[in-house]
Amino acid sequence: MQNIIKNLIQKNKTKIILAVLDGLGGLPINGRTELETALTPNLDGLAKVSACGLHMPVGYGITPGSGPGHLGIFGYDPVECMIGRGILEALGLGMEVRKTDVAVRCNYATIKDGIIIDRRAGRIPTDYNRKLTDKLQQEIKRIDDVEIIFAAGMEHRIAVVMRFPEALEPGSADVEDTDPQKEGMPPLAPRPNTDNAEKVAVVAAKFIERTHQVLKEEEKANYLMMRGFSGTPHIPTFEDAFGLKALAIATYPMYRGLAKIVAMDTPPLEGSVEDQVKFMEAKFDAYDFFFLHVKKIDSYGEDGNFDGKAARIEEFDELLPRIMALNPDVLVITGDHSTPAIMRGHSWHPVPVLLKSPYVYGGLCAAFSERECTKGELGIFPAVNLMPLVLANALRLKKFGA
Amino acid sequence: MQNIIKNLIQKNKTKIILAVLDGLGGLPINGRTELETALTPNLDGLAKVSACGLHMPVGYGITPGSGPGHLGIFGYDPVECMIGRGILEALGLGMEVRKTDVAVRCNYATIKDGIIIDRRAGRIPTDYNRKLTDKLQQEIKRIDDVEIIFAAGMEHRIAVVMRFPEALEPGSADVEDTDPQKEGMPPLAPRPNTDNAEKVAVVAAKFIERTHQVLKEEEKANYLMMRGFSGTPHIPTFEDAFGLKALAIATYPMYRGLAKIVAMDTPPLEGSVEDQVKFMEAKFDAYDFFFLHVKKIDSYGEDGNFDGKAARIEEFDELLPRIMALNPDVLVITGDHSTPAIMRGHSWHPVPVLLKSPYVYGGLCAAFSERECTKGELGIFPAVNLMPLVLANALRLKKFGA
Repeated sequence: MQNIIKNLIQKNKTKIILAVLDGLGGLPINGRTELETALTPNLDGLAKVSACGLHMPVGYGITPGSGPGHLGIFGYDPVECMIGRGILEALGLGMEVRKTDVAVRCNYATIKDGIIIDRRAGRIPTDYNRKLTDKLQQEIKRIDDVEIIFAAGMEHRIAVVMRFPEALEPGSADVEDTDPQKEGMPPLAPRPNTDNAEKVAVVAAKFIERTHQVLKEEEKANYLMMRGFSGTPHIPTFEDAFGLKALAIATYPMYRGLAKIVAMDTPPLEGSVEDQVKFMEAKFDAYDFFFLHVKKIDSYGEDGNFDGKAARIEEFDELLPRIMALNPDVLVITGDHSTPAIMRGHSWHPVPVLLKSPYVYGGLCAAFSERECTKGELGIFPAVNLMPLVLANALRLKKFGA
Repeated sequence: MQNIIKNLIQKNKTKIILAVLDGLGGLPINGRTELETALTPNLDGLAKVSACGLHMPVGYGITPGSGPGHLGIFGYDPVECMIGRGILEALGLGMEVRKTDVAVRCNYATIKDGIIIDRRAGRIPTDYNRKLTDKLQQEIKRIDDVEIIFAAGMEHRIAVVMRFPEALEPGSADVEDTDPQKEGMPPLAPRPNTDNAEKVAVVAAKFIERTHQVLKEEEKANYLMMRGFSGTPHIPTFEDAFGLKALAIATYPMYRGLAKIVAMDTPPLEGSVEDQVKFMEAKFDAYDFFFLHVKKIDSYGEDGNFDGKAARIEEFDELLPRIMALNPDVLVITGDHSTPAIMRGHSWHPVPVLLKSPYVYGGLCAAFSERECTKGELGIFPAVNLMPLVLANALRLKKFGA
């Protein structure tokens, strides 16, 4: 179906806003979900005149990570276009990843006589991790013609980007983890699973040796194990796929990184959701498509803070009139996945969607909520179909067949 | 899925009526769609006791042409079974197309010293086109062993059917357009893209030469350019696919042509919708399946005539008791696509479906409309699944598996 869409794309002057309220969907406590609890007169009013429904990020019963959650609503099949663990780790730490790069999650570990005796190096403090990682970066800037970039994570975790001089072929990052997943075992070799992966495996082997030389006097964190070797997915850019010049308005590195993977413009940005809306106002003439990412709703869900999550939804609701004042041709408000506070994490539940354009029925939902959206004209649909619907409502798809 | 259906087919004496109200779906003006505005007591009464829902002709956001729109509700995957431009053009002009045929859209053009100087020959009047096309037909009846059949279209457009002595292999019509799409260029050669297409390309080259000889003294329309070479799709007949002896009751050539492509019986027919219903009454004993095509609803939608479209729906509603009086085992009322008057053309919106049989719940929809159908027991489903539902309700599908 994606090939069909590609052949139907036509350009025009329409403006599209996609507001992603991260982790929007929830579950009831005392009969009401977070979204049903929040006072959201603006969202509710808009839902009454919009096409509503729920999108299913990946499939029935499948709880998506942030990668598949976003790729789906960006119009990419989240199963075909997997984003590797290493890449996600690197993006989450604010690292840039390019088509030349292989990203890896590493663990500080303790090794003795060639045997792993602690896979997490006693969960060293994050501060100490930072100190060690700075030292590694100072000592190791290149391996052969490959630039090496480190970023400290939490406790024993660290991300590494290997930047090769040229764009990598598919399969280049297909290298086996070196973590044996068990203590009392030697680390594994970074074995290449394809011919294309051989040069990455060679750099990895040298990386392990070089980092061990730097760390070997450490009492605990004297070794690095490598996991989740991954390159950027070989997918078309958002502009190539949909003919849209897109701006990502996100304050968290992970989501800017996801937008960068599909080559949206992703300027660094800090501040409140209001600051994000201000930024969109300032840039509204310069782009066709605006991906506005609102993070905090998910964060409170992850913390199990039901009322906090509802309050963050209300905060967005207060800003909605400013977004509507931009008068986009198509406005979509949804989430990338559900994060019910009672589950303290992502869930498989489909996510409310509201789509406003001149070409909807409306009049089917009394409010914007999980339950009201089940009554909407869009039904429950795979997330990957959101973009075709958006493009159609922006009159950016030609007729199929005569 | 189609293979499974094929293996489950069983025959019986049930009668099925599929009424296709062309372009049925619409969008609201002042809060009501065309279908919601029309006074349709019979449709509304039937919707209350029927299985209702909406079918999606091709996919989310995809606006179907008449070809994919009809193939889908006939039970053929509209993406796999594309009907070529030349075939559609020929069908629309009332030409017959057979398995031996390649159909082509041609343009009268102006050529000078081997260069196209007007791709549309100054948009010659349709009358003059007819005169020229008659002359071509008189002069050119065959090229080698291939019969050549001309039909004048509007202004500079004409359709040509090349009737070969034997059924054509797949890929035979895969010949490049000769229209360079730009003036100031020479016409292109009819280049074959497959081995099977070589004989068609040879006939096309001779056709270009022969027609130019006939036209060369014309001031403007002195040349024919060829586009959209296409053969009939290689798909099973309706009877082979579903075990149904089918009658098409359509007054417009395009829709008779689409029915002929799946080998329904398609007698020529003129007159009002009432005349069509009369015809169905007269033939009701002789067939299992009746495809009743009601065109005018779409025509008014295409013209942006909201009230006219609503009035044509009312006209059908008045005839509905006569259709119900035939007491079909399964009665389906739907459209091939939506044609909202406010869009003056086809759209991507799913299309209301009403299915009456003894094996439905009913009681979910208060009326037959886009919005009421969202509450129905069939949900929103791909058009290609309509025929399996129809067959099941006609008890014409065996159990799958033990």
